Amino acid sequence: MINKIHLNQLLDNLSALRTDNINKDFLLTWEKSLDDLKQTLYIAELLRLMRKNNISPRVFDSGIAISNFRDNSTRTRFSFASAANLLGLEVNDLDESTSQIAHGETVRETATMISFMADIIGIRDDMYLDEGDKYQREVGKALDEGINDDVLEQRAGIINLQSDIDHPTQSMSDLLHLVNHFGGIENLKGKKIAMTWAYSPSYGKPLSVPQGVIGLLTRFGMNVDLAYPEGYNLIPEIEQLATKQAKENGSTFNITNNMDEAFNDADIVYPKSWAPFTVMQERTKLLKQKDYSGLDSLEQTCLKNNAKYMDWECTEDKMKLTNDKNALYMHCLPADITGVSCKQGEVVENVFEKNKIALYKQASYKPYIIAAMMMNNRFKNPSEILEKIIKLNPKRIAF
Amino acid sequence: MINKIHLNQLLDNLSALRTDNINKDFLLTWEKSLDDLKQTLYIAELLRLMRKNNISPRVFDSGIAISNFRDNSTRTRFSFASAANLLGLEVNDLDESTSQIAHGETVRETATMISFMADIIGIRDDMYLDEGDKYQREVGKALDEGINDDVLEQRAGIINLQSDIDHPTQSMSDLLHLVNHFGGIENLKGKKIAMTWAYSPSYGKPLSVPQGVIGLLTRFGMNVDLAYPEGYNLIPEIEQLATKQAKENGSTFNITNNMDEAFNDADIVYPKSWAPFTVMQERTKLLKQKDYSGLDSLEQTCLKNNAKYMDWECTEDKMKLTNDKNALYMHCLPADITGVSCKQGEVVENVFEKNKIALYKQASYKPYIIAAMMMNNRFKNPSEILEKIIKLNPKRIAF
Amino acid sequence: MINKIHLNQLLDNLSALRTDNINKDFLLTWEKSLDDLKQTLYIAELLRLMRKNNISPRVFDSGIAISNFRDNSTRTRFSFASAANLLGLEVNDLDESTSQIAHGETVRETATMISFMADIIGIRDDMYLDEGDKYQREVGKALDEGINDDVLEQRAGIINLQSDIDHPTQSMSDLLHLVNHFGGIENLKGKKIAMTWAYSPSYGKPLSVPQGVIGLLTRFGMNVDLAYPEGYNLIPEIEQLATKQAKENGSTFNITNNMDEAFNDADIVYPKSWAPFTVMQERTKLLKQKDYSGLDSLEQTCLKNNAKYMDWECTEDKMKLTNDKNALYMHCLPADITGVSCKQGEVVENVFEKNKIALYKQASYKPYIIAAMMMNNRFKNPSEILEKIIKLNPKRIAF
Repeated sequence: MINKIHLNQLLDNLSALRTDNINKDFLLTWEKSLDDLKQTLYIAELLRLMRKNNISPRVFDSGIAISNFRDNSTRTRFSFASAANLLGLEVNDLDESTSQIAHGETVRETATMISFMADIIGIRDDMYLDEGDKYQREVGKALDEGINDDVLEQRAGIINLQSDIDHPTQSMSDLLHLVNHFGGIENLKGKKIAMTWAYSPSYGKPLSVPQGVIGLLTRFGMNVDLAYPEGYNLIPEIEQLATKQAKENGSTFNITNNMDEAFNDADIVYPKSWAPFTVMQERTKLLKQKDYSGLDSLEQTCLKNNAKYMDWECTEDKMKLTNDKNALYMHCLPADITGVSCKQGEVVENVFEKNKIALYKQASYKPYIIAAMMMNNRFKNPSEILEKIIKLNPKRIAF
Repeated sequence: MINKIHLNQLLDNLSALRTDNINKDFLLTWEKSLDDLKQTLYIAELLRLMRKNNISPRVFDSGIAISNFRDNSTRTRFSFASAANLLGLEVNDLDESTSQIAHGETVRETATMISFMADIIGIRDDMYLDEGDKYQREVGKALDEGINDDVLEQRAGIINLQSDIDHPTQSMSDLLHLVNHFGGIENLKGKKIAMTWAYSPSYGKPLSVPQGVIGLLTRFGMNVDLAYPEGYNLIPEIEQLATKQAKENGSTFNITNNMDEAFNDADIVYPKSWAPFTVMQERTKLLKQKDYSGLDSLEQTCLKNNAKYMDWECTEDKMKLTNDKNALYMHCLPADITGVSCKQGEVVENVFEKNKIALYKQASYKPYIIAAMMMNNRFKNPSEILEKIIKLNPKRIAF
Repeated sequence: MINKIHLNQLLDNLSALRTDNINKDFLLTWEKSLDDLKQTLYIAELLRLMRKNNISPRVFDSGIAISNFRDNSTRTRFSFASAANLLGLEVNDLDESTSQIAHGETVRETATMISFMADIIGIRDDMYLDEGDKYQREVGKALDEGINDDVLEQRAGIINLQSDIDHPTQSMSDLLHLVNHFGGIENLKGKKIAMTWAYSPSYGKPLSVPQGVIGLLTRFGMNVDLAYPEGYNLIPEIEQLATKQAKENGSTFNITNNMDEAFNDADIVYPKSWAPFTVMQERTKLLKQKDYSGLDSLEQTCLKNNAKYMDWECTEDKMKLTNDKNALYMHCLPADITGVSCKQGEVVENVFEKNKIALYKQASYKPYIIAAMMMNNRFKNPSEILEKIIKLNPKRIAF
């Protein structure tokens, strides 16, 4: 049977919040209040508890959740589909390669045309700096106009499934993982996390994961160290935002070019590769110019540059620098594991293997985080609705 | 709450009809009686009203709607998926590129193999003259045989999502748009519509939209002018059909090679590009012969020929020729907008922008038209069923 | 109304079984007890009867069935989707070409990442000897570890949708077809089936269909003749297994290089092409070495070799050799029909056409067999549950 104490605690937590998530797109965590974020965490936990106890939180009898993946995805795609299914929405994939979009349709028109019956739209658009977040907002504006013009009967909620700026379904899953690992949101206060660059033989990885992490965790009293080789900085505005947020929360945000410094006494380490901000800027420019030879040579230069920092690897020795030599190791997966998925990568096999269970748990929160974002977008008081459902006790699997 | 007066009027309208839609494929509007078409319009409106009022018209607990798009589609694909979802059917896409169909399966066998649990099959096959409609009928015949042979337990209904001849989900949406715009079916009587060719820099656009429009609207007492440059005629039999239908309904159907003449005093204008019938015939022949250089030179010739008629453009000046200088502008979208989606196209930006809201409304009916076609195919008396559902009041979104 | 006698007989049959299907993957029929297999047959029949009588056997309010097709498929894909839909599960396709799997993710990690909310995973992986079954077991092991590590909340059941070794959804559908054709399982005893190779102009067809047939039917007292040209043998272990099983069941299993011998007095014939075991071994080796010119020359050699056996064709003369000149002709479809789908193939048109209705019936069982496998994997006592549902009488199509 459903765990009554945990459940009541979640409902109590939820009732204390003052939130403003209904009908609000979820694009950047820093556009949300702390209570908005907490609501997402608690509803995610509530949904997980319900499903575990075979109570179906299906709140839609029919409805459409559109997914628009402008970049490849396995885990986020499945998480989105699972979340939609749990609530009763059917996923319709806007596959731009088989649609007429390539033939010059404007963003606004397409957004309207697909949204006559859409409840939720999830968008991944993380390939080009200055493009992904902008595109998501353009879609949102189109939907607003559709409502104003009485063309749409409902305004679908947009969920950012990764943009050039933020990756909130990832960072919120990471946060829920930390909350459960350390036994509560309040226990995050004062914990040190090392968000560090790591070497990878690939190139062009987006900045949104580290940006999402520093933009979110500096709001929960955590001391965040961001480490990268010189020149590998993130979008400057996001680094400034993290600085400001840490200051407001009485915690620290440090940038260092020394991986060991970040690892020193860290409670959590998050070593992960990304491309330097300036390279991503140059890449977007070349792509727009369709300068493919320029892109090739940028890739070569960048890979050569990466190769200077092969020692930015999460090794057992580096892990010994951390608090109790036992920091929680995090990664959004898939990781570049030395000797496993590549010759030389972000992390040695031993460290990865030792932390695999925790890593998979970290990933397991994503479907519930996305489902919570969907519910919060559609319902003013989702906890009240879920409480009612728990009383009715509809089974997910019959009998 | 649901609008009682509008609702009762719809139910009254429906109860007065004598229809024969059950178990009948929807391939061409002119194979349907006026009452069959009206049933589709009214059921579509009823479904729209129900969804707007959060009443779920889900009549299937499980079931399959197969979509078979032999040509690209965004809006019709989403409309079909939304319609299926609203009624409780799950879409299964027959993607011929990833199936074994390419390996020589016959149409009949495939049709049977995918239909053991299918309730509805939607087919778009509009690329080649003399092929699309034929294919849809072959599928239907295969299903009939499957029933006769006791191989299939139910005979899926087929919905034409665009063939070489007709595009009934488009023309019926267009008609519903007109009915709502002019305040009733009876108000269409005597209205003049200009279905005209317009210049586009592309080539090979199907004839099914203009054919669908003239084949449908001549049955509702409208005066239809069909305008195109010399040589750009539609399938001759459809032009003859429109002539005959107009005569029977006491209205007019004129063909002219003068765009202005069609626009003169028109209440509605529908300027849209298409390829000449003879080019489409030639194209099909070359494609069957796999004569790709022949196809290339046909495209060049055709584009060059199109370029002679760049002045077939819906401009503000042309709009001034229409009734009260204020005709309703229609398009099935996406339109080729001069200076927006192409250098020179079917319509100037000002005219398009001024009519955008109406255009999007026009498109918004399609999911409901398709859902109505699905219901009418499966239920003898869909209005009775919807009336029962309205009384039971099941919510689409819980609580 | 539902056929009470047939229904009660099925329920009686089911209650007499001692089964062990719950939480057990369905990979090879010979890993299952006779009762396990019978449960699959009877539940399939029960589900078919229910659907025919408009009773919805939907046991899931929400849930995910993942399909992973590593080879093309139309009929199995639609059967799997229809089965999932009937029970209330939504299909999520793991399309490896659009996912990150190509970028070096391990099988285990992917299996875990997609399975947080998965109830069923169907896998087709039949291209390479020694690979398909192994892959399916690797996925299973990953899921077991996920449960042990408390990373997964439920352990999805795996259904083999065709591996290098067995094709159980096909062979079980074939068996159900035989049971219904001959009026009961007990009537299969002593019936002779000729599972024979047949000429096809293609190359590299998997061995899993003939292996599945001889591995299954030798357990039901049938006399099985396996016929192929010299060198076209199946995996030796499966031929040995069939020998052993026939002996245990007091029936015969003969291998012959003479098609006529197999057809002599056969009650059932199943002529179908496959590639020789040794060629499949060589092919796998070359593929792993990415030796594409080696693959090309293997294909040429193999096609040339096939061409020596063009007389291995199911003709009317050959059919006259069978019992009462009237054996039941079976094929998994699509067949290579001489003069229809190819110049010279497995069967002449007349024989195929004469048996088409039976062939389509044979195929029609697959969705129900798969649905039964799903139910048996998830529920300890599926017949009790279905009996309850029959009493409640929920409609698949409303009203």
